[in-house]
Amino acid sequence: MSSHHIVRDDQEPALIIANGASCQPELIGQLLEWSPLVVVLDSAMERVMELDIKVDVLIGDFDRNFDPEKYQEEQFPIEIIHTPDQNKTDLEKAFDYLIARNIPAVNVVWATGKRADHTITNITTISKYRNVLKIVLLDDHSKIFLLPKKFEKWYTANTPISLIPIGNVTGIRSSNLFYPLQNDTLTLGYRTGSSNHVTQDGIVTIEHEDGDLLLMECID
Amino acid sequence: MSSHHIVRDDQEPALIIANGASCQPELIGQLLEWSPLVVVLDSAMERVMELDIKVDVLIGDFDRNFDPEKYQEEQFPIEIIHTPDQNKTDLEKAFDYLIARNIPAVNVVWATGKRADHTITNITTISKYRNVLKIVLLDDHSKIFLLPKKFEKWYTANTPISLIPIGNVTGIRSSNLFYPLQNDTLTLGYRTGSSNHVTQDGIVTIEHEDGDLLLMECID
Repeated sequence: MSSHHIVRDDQEPALIIANGASCQPELIGQLLEWSPLVVVLDSAMERVMELDIKVDVLIGDFDRNFDPEKYQEEQFPIEIIHTPDQNKTDLEKAFDYLIARNIPAVNVVWATGKRADHTITNITTISKYRNVLKIVLLDDHSKIFLLPKKFEKWYTANTPISLIPIGNVTGIRSSNLFYPLQNDTLTLGYRTGSSNHVTQDGIVTIEHEDGDLLLMECID
Repeated sequence: MSSHHIVRDDQEPALIIANGASCQPELIGQLLEWSPLVVVLDSAMERVMELDIKVDVLIGDFDRNFDPEKYQEEQFPIEIIHTPDQNKTDLEKAFDYLIARNIPAVNVVWATGKRADHTITNITTISKYRNVLKIVLLDDHSKIFLLPKKFEKWYTANTPISLIPIGNVTGIRSSNLFYPLQNDTLTLGYRTGSSNHVTQDGIVTIEHEDGDLLLMECID
């Protein structure tokens, strides 16, 4: 197995493999290099088994004739957590599990694609975890995370940057973006900051006063 | 060509083929049976040409070395519309074109998948067209449309129904849904009505007082 067998610091981000569309195996391979803990959601386990990955935790409500116990041997040791709560998604249950273990950060793959209701719910639910868990969603075309009130990061010129408000976001200011924001308001469905890009090599600054603002780095 | 060569009423929905992930050809085939007008966005035309479809309108900013003129002959007669406006997405430009032609309804495919920023922008932008254009987005897993203040439709029992608020939606009431809504508020990122389903064969009623509420019929 191409396992993550080196003992790692729990401060490094965990990896959640959710139950949407699969990504290129190379993306998972890169993320596994840094992940101390791999959590798989429900029946995604069947697809994960084809990837020759060591899984640490399997979480789900296991409703549709899915038997998690068969993985006790194939993935020994593995923690199997049955979470029947219908008020939370499997992804939220996995976030709650990591928080309970004091793990501060997580990368998430397979959270997008297939069903649009799951995709939009998974992407926007990260706003609920502000200040308790640093979450990055990744797929073959996108890297998505929630912005702090003041965000600064070095980017190369022309990097595509999309700012997507979850609802309404006010007082947005940017520097080093091609379409600058100057105390602007963005509202999902009416005015978003999709398809902006970095002006020149250097620090991009994005500040906002109120609301939940996602940054998406996307490529075609 | 498996064309739509019968003269049709302009009251039937047009078909927009956007520039996200391709769907199963069968879905486009079904929609073409009823479409008087086929509009393709920008370089999606290259993939559409492989499907043997008669295209009526090609819209885009045609920026990345894409030459639309070559389709003048292969798709004669075709209307080619160059829309360089950077403040609107290609999908919004296509909606505006249909409104200008007094076409009241449109089905949209290839609007989801690939880049997450495009997916979320395309899905939520339909709120802007309330009362001027009846829009349905479809992919292999999802059918998405904006709800009027009072919505009634006959469904079979157990049909999955997800209610996704674009921002904040208040005063939501439902009948014949398994998880009933009773003057509830839904807020994107915090509380959505994802993964509900129909209780029994019959009319489902969903009302809301304020905000933009999407209904998604999704399957795994």
